[in-house]
Amino acid sequence: MNQNDKSYVIGLDLGGTNSVFGIVDANAKVVAETSVKTKGHNDNAQQYVDDCVVELKKIIDQVGGIDKIRAMGIGAPNGNYYTGCIEFAPNLPWGRNVVPLAKMFSDALGIPVAMTNDANAAAIGEMTYGAAKGMKNFIMITLGTGVGSGIVVNGQMVYGCDGMAGELGHVIVDPNGRECGCGRKGCLETYCSATGVARTAREILTTTDRPSLLREIPLDQIESKDVSIAAGKGDEVAKEIFEFTGRMLGEACANFAAFNSPEAFVFFGGLMKAGDLLMEPIKRAYDASVLKIYRGKAKMLVSQLDDAKAAVLGASALGWEIAMEKGTALNNQENK
Amino acid sequence: MNQNDKSYVIGLDLGGTNSVFGIVDANAKVVAETSVKTKGHNDNAQQYVDDCVVELKKIIDQVGGIDKIRAMGIGAPNGNYYTGCIEFAPNLPWGRNVVPLAKMFSDALGIPVAMTNDANAAAIGEMTYGAAKGMKNFIMITLGTGVGSGIVVNGQMVYGCDGMAGELGHVIVDPNGRECGCGRKGCLETYCSATGVARTAREILTTTDRPSLLREIPLDQIESKDVSIAAGKGDEVAKEIFEFTGRMLGEACANFAAFNSPEAFVFFGGLMKAGDLLMEPIKRAYDASVLKIYRGKAKMLVSQLDDAKAAVLGASALGWEIAMEKGTALNNQENK
Repeated sequence: MNQNDKSYVIGLDLGGTNSVFGIVDANAKVVAETSVKTKGHNDNAQQYVDDCVVELKKIIDQVGGIDKIRAMGIGAPNGNYYTGCIEFAPNLPWGRNVVPLAKMFSDALGIPVAMTNDANAAAIGEMTYGAAKGMKNFIMITLGTGVGSGIVVNGQMVYGCDGMAGELGHVIVDPNGRECGCGRKGCLETYCSATGVARTAREILTTTDRPSLLREIPLDQIESKDVSIAAGKGDEVAKEIFEFTGRMLGEACANFAAFNSPEAFVFFGGLMKAGDLLMEPIKRAYDASVLKIYRGKAKMLVSQLDDAKAAVLGASALGWEIAMEKGTALNNQENK
Repeated sequence: MNQNDKSYVIGLDLGGTNSVFGIVDANAKVVAETSVKTKGHNDNAQQYVDDCVVELKKIIDQVGGIDKIRAMGIGAPNGNYYTGCIEFAPNLPWGRNVVPLAKMFSDALGIPVAMTNDANAAAIGEMTYGAAKGMKNFIMITLGTGVGSGIVVNGQMVYGCDGMAGELGHVIVDPNGRECGCGRKGCLETYCSATGVARTAREILTTTDRPSLLREIPLDQIESKDVSIAAGKGDEVAKEIFEFTGRMLGEACANFAAFNSPEAFVFFGGLMKAGDLLMEPIKRAYDASVLKIYRGKAKMLVSQLDDAKAAVLGASALGWEIAMEKGTALNNQENK
């Protein structure tokens, strides 16, 4: 049996609520999994790492010990690839300054650790295992609480001069538009995130008296999935909300095409469960808005990664990248 | 003497009016130059190439013959790097279909020939000889009749899936804005090109009765350089035109930063002669508009290449690229 077949990487999907760890083999199979609450730990980053390592060691032992693990990849909000630090993450009580998380895990585990933001990790996952396999130029758009993006050019992630490139959710699509959490106005994510969809719903319900199933829900409790359910039942207002969301996103993507003329846009996240209700207006607006020389070139794809595991797989793909670059004992003939 | 020191590349700046050829040494010195009218040639691409080669051979002989030439680079409107073709260039009578110009010159001269569009050639020139020397991530913006761009990520030109990436002049900055030659509305170049500046002037002069030196010029004859001259004399309307142009450009660049977090924006072209009248509002709007994580990171630079020679140097830099990749007799020990 080839030693390489026996080796694994760890993927960490570091979310605002849970930190999910998966041990992943070379065939993208998650062979062991555990999770730790992200908050708590006395709001202390070292305590967080120590608590994680306690849990992590249990599943590492299940696969035969740390010698079987080649590297670890982390996808985290505000994760900087170049520095391996989480930088000013507003939703992480222990991450509001600069936390060298990659180094801290590397020191604790004795393996190479790389980190990037969650959307970039998703893009690497999609390129390694999913809809963008073999593609050299594509744009990943993640539609969650916010809108994230991961951009691939010439087969490489775009990290920029500072490791923070690819924040297409904060491209301003309307300078006089909705207020954004970033302190500016009209960012794409104020319209096309799950939160944006709920916001559009509230706008329509309060500024018109059109009948809608959504009126059965208290205004401040409407979520994007309520809009999805209502649209599925044929609710006209709900369908219009997705039409509007798709149009904003399609027009924005048409502008993004002028950067790297991508082979595909890959959309990921809960909002995509709306299916064609969202995808059709995206495609229609894109085709109507994109510069002629790009028309008909970019495929509009939905992520092929299992929602529940995509983030861990994406992080693990980054782990494989660093394992290939740095090599590990298992990969080194002299150490066999 | 090192053979490499004795070798040259040809750079061709293929403009709508003139095709300027330069023979360039490794120190970016243009050692010989000639030019041919781009139009004419019976509207026939092969005739154009043949006529060019006749003129070109004269300067090639001046430097010691074709054996001294390692490669040729072409910067041309709608030039596609991947295919070496000019594709549907509206202003070239012999280039309105798909013309395999790189191959045609290569066949005629017996050397490797590469082609890209003029703005990409400028970016390669800037990276090789100019303000972006040593930079791995930057955006070149060319402000001429239109607005062009060349984007560099990880030290490589962004060509995209089709060789046509990097058309930031056609990012739509106002969906209800000015009509653009591309058939859409509100493209950046309708505001921030030389033509856009003249258009802004006409708008202000016709919609207000503010006094201005520009009123001495017939409305349909106002050019951007008139605005520049008037602004230099302290004309308030002219200064406001640059203020508006700079603001539109600065806000657009703030959005572009979200793509590749560039180390610098490099601005090139006649409009930049306005100096701080244009650069100050660009910087101000950029700083006010850019996402906080990018603030203060990107330098705002003016091209360091001599205007008259920049395009030829840019094309020649592409020539060096292909010479390094493909090698030539001069670079090959076995052929010495």
